[in-house]
Amino acid sequence: MFIPRLAIIGVGLIGGSLARALKQINACGEVVGCGRNTVALQQAIELGVIDRYVTQPADAVKEAEMIVVAVPLGTMATIFDAIRDNLSPHAIITDVGSAKATVVADAKQYLGQTFPRFVPAHPIAGTEKSGVLASFAELFENRKVILTPLPETDPHACTQVATMWQHTGAEVVEMSVLHHDEVLAATSHLPHLLAYSLVDTLAQMEERTEIFRFAAGGFRDFTRIASSDPRMWHDICLANREAILKVLIHFNQGLTELTQAIDKGHSEQIEKIFTQAKMARDKFVS
Amino acid sequence: MFIPRLAIIGVGLIGGSLARALKQINACGEVVGCGRNTVALQQAIELGVIDRYVTQPADAVKEAEMIVVAVPLGTMATIFDAIRDNLSPHAIITDVGSAKATVVADAKQYLGQTFPRFVPAHPIAGTEKSGVLASFAELFENRKVILTPLPETDPHACTQVATMWQHTGAEVVEMSVLHHDEVLAATSHLPHLLAYSLVDTLAQMEERTEIFRFAAGGFRDFTRIASSDPRMWHDICLANREAILKVLIHFNQGLTELTQAIDKGHSEQIEKIFTQAKMARDKFVS
Repeated sequence: MFIPRLAIIGVGLIGGSLARALKQINACGEVVGCGRNTVALQQAIELGVIDRYVTQPADAVKEAEMIVVAVPLGTMATIFDAIRDNLSPHAIITDVGSAKATVVADAKQYLGQTFPRFVPAHPIAGTEKSGVLASFAELFENRKVILTPLPETDPHACTQVATMWQHTGAEVVEMSVLHHDEVLAATSHLPHLLAYSLVDTLAQMEERTEIFRFAAGGFRDFTRIASSDPRMWHDICLANREAILKVLIHFNQGLTELTQAIDKGHSEQIEKIFTQAKMARDKFVS
Repeated sequence: MFIPRLAIIGVGLIGGSLARALKQINACGEVVGCGRNTVALQQAIELGVIDRYVTQPADAVKEAEMIVVAVPLGTMATIFDAIRDNLSPHAIITDVGSAKATVVADAKQYLGQTFPRFVPAHPIAGTEKSGVLASFAELFENRKVILTPLPETDPHACTQVATMWQHTGAEVVEMSVLHHDEVLAATSHLPHLLAYSLVDTLAQMEERTEIFRFAAGGFRDFTRIASSDPRMWHDICLANREAILKVLIHFNQGLTELTQAIDKGHSEQIEKIFTQAKMARDKFVS
């Protein structure tokens, strides 16, 4: 597969890393970047991530065979609305959003008859950093990319998007929109919320106690994701609200049980919870 | 400072790493290891971590100038009781426990008139691994070791323990027992509980959803500490119960506020919490 013209709308960590990975193996021709921050876009050119840039999404998609929308979830609808009338007849559109139900709804509403050529996708990769300066070609190697096609999604478009991601070294899997949003709420969105919430709570205790001064490696790793982009995660929380609230209820039940076990000194139950967790976590990393 | 004979009771990650660090710079003579698992103790000899081993704490302390008790918190009292009558007249005793109030109470009760030569200490270092095989000499480099001496603690003993830890490359600081236990409840014990609780909760949802299959680097780092030794953390929870329950209340208030903000779609509040947390976390790592 060769993409003669690739449009990346939102040249940040994910969009930038995808462009780098595809350029590295000559899987694409011209890469057109689109964004609002022209300083960052100029940097993206200097870094060789994109070949040129525009600031209007409608200009970015002209004569592009593949369009990757890599903007925060709350901005998707605006982009789809802006590009609809300038798309090439066979252009394929995909996204990289961390929750899929709202993106699919936005695409259905704003892409109109092009909707079958929209392939909802989510690369399960990232770091706590954002912006094109943090991007690198190897970000997706051995990571998973989840596609959540719908009954009306064009199978050819789906194959093209899958192939594009395989070129980056990723493994492509398919699942339903609903399943994706539930799974990601549990393994990604909830941990982010807990890390943000913990750090914010401790920061408010900090003045009295200098607690961060005595934090160690465990704390550093546990809270790494609390350094992620607040706007992006704000959008994810609102976009995947229902699934997140559902898994938060599960989490709260578990934490309440553990708290009560500690409060009452229920030795066996505490050790059982910790042992089960260690087994599951050790299995996950093995 | 040179320690002619060093007794390490509990030759695991911490005890083993301390012995390695001191041996590496010839800060000690003979290192006597003590434990129940003779296979691990034999490995410790083969690894050069200790010079010989005994299985009875009372034997380990004979003619030792420095005794480091590096066992789980729930075992401290038994050890103090066992060694009291065999201590050399000027022997200094210290520990590495992650909570200090119970250790101090145990030492007071069981060390009797030797209590002034007991220096409560806590190296803020570790990994999720346990056992002597995971030990390494550099574990304490640039880490903090907190001493929590009491009014009756012998200043000379305190200096000796501080010097020993400085030899490992650590920075030694002093604080009160109460302050230590509150600070560590917030920055170490609470994150461990949250990680254990999250993984246990998700493991129970796992069967339906294969969720761990789609977890990425954020999840891996966030849950690293859930691979820690369940028995050790069980003991910490019970030993530092009061401070842990106090900080859990704070955390629950924060999480409830965030949950409600998500539920009600309070956009500004969500972004404010995430932004504050990111600022605090970025400041912590800088």
